[in-house]
Amino acid sequence: MTAWSDAGSVEVLAFDIFGTVVDWHGSIAREVQALHPQVDGSAFALAWRAGYKPAMQRVMSGELGWTLIDDLHRMILDEILSQFGLQHLDEPARAHLNRAWHRLDAWPDAVAGLQRLKRKYILCSLSNGNIGLLTRMAKRAGLPWDCVLSAEVFRAYKPDPRTYLGVAKVFDVEPSRVMLVAAHHDDLAGARACGLRTAYVERPLEFGAGRPKDVSPRPDNDLHSRDLLDLADQLGC
Amino acid sequence: MTAWSDAGSVEVLAFDIFGTVVDWHGSIAREVQALHPQVDGSAFALAWRAGYKPAMQRVMSGELGWTLIDDLHRMILDEILSQFGLQHLDEPARAHLNRAWHRLDAWPDAVAGLQRLKRKYILCSLSNGNIGLLTRMAKRAGLPWDCVLSAEVFRAYKPDPRTYLGVAKVFDVEPSRVMLVAAHHDDLAGARACGLRTAYVERPLEFGAGRPKDVSPRPDNDLHSRDLLDLADQLGC
Repeated sequence: MTAWSDAGSVEVLAFDIFGTVVDWHGSIAREVQALHPQVDGSAFALAWRAGYKPAMQRVMSGELGWTLIDDLHRMILDEILSQFGLQHLDEPARAHLNRAWHRLDAWPDAVAGLQRLKRKYILCSLSNGNIGLLTRMAKRAGLPWDCVLSAEVFRAYKPDPRTYLGVAKVFDVEPSRVMLVAAHHDDLAGARACGLRTAYVERPLEFGAGRPKDVSPRPDNDLHSRDLLDLADQLGC
Repeated sequence: MTAWSDAGSVEVLAFDIFGTVVDWHGSIAREVQALHPQVDGSAFALAWRAGYKPAMQRVMSGELGWTLIDDLHRMILDEILSQFGLQHLDEPARAHLNRAWHRLDAWPDAVAGLQRLKRKYILCSLSNGNIGLLTRMAKRAGLPWDCVLSAEVFRAYKPDPRTYLGVAKVFDVEPSRVMLVAAHHDDLAGARACGLRTAYVERPLEFGAGRPKDVSPRPDNDLHSRDLLDLADQLGC
């Protein structure tokens, strides 16, 4: 296939992580189910993730001071355990379970796709996850980042413009030389409003096989890709 | 040889960069000499580097607001050019030369040593260099960081305690589980005062063959290593 004609104008690819590069739903569901076979792992994963945006909203509204995702995950976990009959879990068990977010598995195409893209571009994460979480996840899953960038660096959660513009500032380039790669249209819209290029990645199973996601193309994005191998093709890597 | 008995208590190795992992003196001298054969490249490199600590001091004292190393390097460059008969350099030439700090070569043992250490430890940079500089340097030189940490993340320059303690906080570990690896005793002393473990690396040619450095062991450090391969041996990697 022919590579995208503007592929050479981009220098940095910034990746959303949860859902885009790693399978949070499947990984959390499997881990919960293995530890607690009586629990519906998929429902647990969905309940945990459902608390994510509201928790970040409490930070960005100022109701909570600056709080890392590890701590927000833990607050949500403590709230949902009783819904699943797990309120008896002690502190070490809760701490261990909370670290499941450091142990998410990559989508099958992710490592090979990133390795190809890395030959031509600077690859960084741009996730609301904290640096420690992202680093441990990358080491375990083999994600070959050139640089781990996080909301923690910019002290703001996506879609705050400080995050997208922060990537351009870190690399001292115009926003149009940075492309956000994500499986979420709201994230891509935030980046586009800041002048970044955008690539959508289809992840139809992000919420599990029971909740297929609409992944039809939207014309606003520069690129629409099935997965990261397809993205590498389109970027001529 | 026998590995250090406490090697298992450390989880994160944080590396000083300029002089410890990369040869700033030789790299800058070579690049200046190649661009301007009439200039003494070694003297130029030493003059440029001599402005580094005073410039950071102006930031930490509050005389200057928060300023990235790329910008401090440029301020110093503009000040020293006339001493070397290079005051005629135009803006693109100065910008290109300033980026020489993104193109520093690794010491010959560095990549192989880091690859061995990476199997057992989380490896991060902890440099006063900015994130963009460190990322481009690592990509070019093949330095396999798990995470690029910088003064830029903590908005403080080493030896400010916020930098050393910042690494422990990012990885959510006790300071004693982080080891600073550096070729500079003042940096190691700062880390030690914060409870980090310390490993000295001999870099006798840091300032060039004309200015050999005293690299004799000091008892304050947990480890003393000839280079990063020797450090890997001592850490059982």
